Amino acid sequence: MTTNQIVECVPNFSEGRNTEKMEKIIDCFRGKTGVKLLDYSNDVDHNRMVITAIGSPEAMKSAMVEAIGTAVREIDLTKHQGQHPRMGAADVVPFIPVSNMTMDEAINLAKEVAKEAAEKFMLPMYLYEKAASAPHRENLAEVRKGQFEGLTEKMKSPLWKPDFGPDTPHPTAGATIIGARNYLIAYNVNLHSTDLEIAKAIARKVRFIGGGLRFCKAMGVNLQGKNMVQVSMNLTDFTKTSVYQAFEMVKMEAARYGISVAGSEVIGLLPLGVLVDTANYYLGIEDFTVDRVLEYRMLE
Amino acid sequence: MTTNQIVECVPNFSEGRNTEKMEKIIDCFRGKTGVKLLDYSNDVDHNRMVITAIGSPEAMKSAMVEAIGTAVREIDLTKHQGQHPRMGAADVVPFIPVSNMTMDEAINLAKEVAKEAAEKFMLPMYLYEKAASAPHRENLAEVRKGQFEGLTEKMKSPLWKPDFGPDTPHPTAGATIIGARNYLIAYNVNLHSTDLEIAKAIARKVRFIGGGLRFCKAMGVNLQGKNMVQVSMNLTDFTKTSVYQAFEMVKMEAARYGISVAGSEVIGLLPLGVLVDTANYYLGIEDFTVDRVLEYRMLE
Repeated sequence: MTTNQIVECVPNFSEGRNTEKMEKIIDCFRGKTGVKLLDYSNDVDHNRMVITAIGSPEAMKSAMVEAIGTAVREIDLTKHQGQHPRMGAADVVPFIPVSNMTMDEAINLAKEVAKEAAEKFMLPMYLYEKAASAPHRENLAEVRKGQFEGLTEKMKSPLWKPDFGPDTPHPTAGATIIGARNYLIAYNVNLHSTDLEIAKAIARKVRFIGGGLRFCKAMGVNLQGKNMVQVSMNLTDFTKTSVYQAFEMVKMEAARYGISVAGSEVIGLLPLGVLVDTANYYLGIEDFTVDRVLEYRMLE
Repeated sequence: MTTNQIVECVPNFSEGRNTEKMEKIIDCFRGKTGVKLLDYSNDVDHNRMVITAIGSPEAMKSAMVEAIGTAVREIDLTKHQGQHPRMGAADVVPFIPVSNMTMDEAINLAKEVAKEAAEKFMLPMYLYEKAASAPHRENLAEVRKGQFEGLTEKMKSPLWKPDFGPDTPHPTAGATIIGARNYLIAYNVNLHSTDLEIAKAIARKVRFIGGGLRFCKAMGVNLQGKNMVQVSMNLTDFTKTSVYQAFEMVKMEAARYGISVAGSEVIGLLPLGVLVDTANYYLGIEDFTVDRVLEYRMLE
């Protein structure tokens, strides 16, 4: 048995215009052993860049500390303008457990990175979402409220003492919001129907707020090009609400209207655990785990 | 899109007793970048060792050439005794395409290794199975017939001129049989029944020789401990005969007898492609490939 762990990190940086500066930050993830850079994209209006990387916790930790340091050095928020709210040079850093890793381990990783970056760069760090140290700090928008410009004032309140680092903002890099959250799966099921009202009715039954699956958000959507409607879903914890459950639940509700399912689609990448879960359900496989997938063993 | 390829190699070496010699061969795969040693096992009576490794074609090629060279150096077949038939120090070397790789590419890899090893070690090489240069050379037992002791005589026939290397045996290492074959999946479906005759009847309908699936071998088995019977299958080309087809076909036949399926089991490791195939079938996912599995992207 392997103990191999994969974590995803999707850090947001407050630089979306200067290519040279962006490249320096991206380089912290590029070609590093144990880290794979999956994507990066910048927005000039937002003056912001989002990076997506996966890797082993240890390798990701060192890449992320390096990237925060590079952002602190390269980005001057006293001169930063953009449409997107921001509080820090390295603005938001979420860790997402992907395989063989618990949420607690992702939270610990976030705290380790926060502690090390705080000490190395004299940077205040706020823990948010699953890593938050108090309920009022869970929501990103709440933590970021007031942004860089309001940070000196905000930090005077004991409510907003940072979790790590100095009690005053870094003069040019502000503060970083760091934490852990679940992997989000965007999953859509297409119906052999053009009736949007039916897709909406199914979505209401399938989603959490309507009495449906605990970790499912859903809405009905019209697919213009395809002459079909769709139940478009976000699964916010695939380890508890399974993809196959969402699929079967839509199928079940659609049957009420005599409508069959045309197929489904996944947006972006899927963790291996979802495929194992699906095969275990439909084929009734016993004791099958990600460790028994050949390609996964390459990652040991 | 990645072009990442994974090949498996399951070489058999004619040494199952001397730990030091075995370790030298195993070391050719251990800790090599791009190669993962999955398993090795030796049999003292057979005086033979089997290694299982996966990796990128390039890395596997160099590890395999090194391993053949080590076997040629370490193993002396003039002194070798064991119950298992053998013709060479590195006796049989099959390459198995696992992901993002065609059979033709695996055949080419086998030929490249054969050519390089033949030149480096003055070793005759026979291509077999999918890589065979003539129909009478496809079957391993046919190629190996006469073994090391009969090789000098056998090679005098133009029918048994080697594909690479000298026209006479290596004095102490004989000749190596190298080629490419499909990945074999051992897959069993358990039935809520204790009637072995029914399991056998289902096996006959599901398997190729009985008119069933093209790449499926099957037999009925009694599971003593579980108070159940089982249809035990070998799927010899999962890219054509799918695991879900085998499962559904057993279920379909079992329904004739009013028997339901209790579950299924996979022996050993499964290529990621099987899980993708399964999810695509049951969830009707569109355009989903191994490249869209997060963990697989780590291998790029």
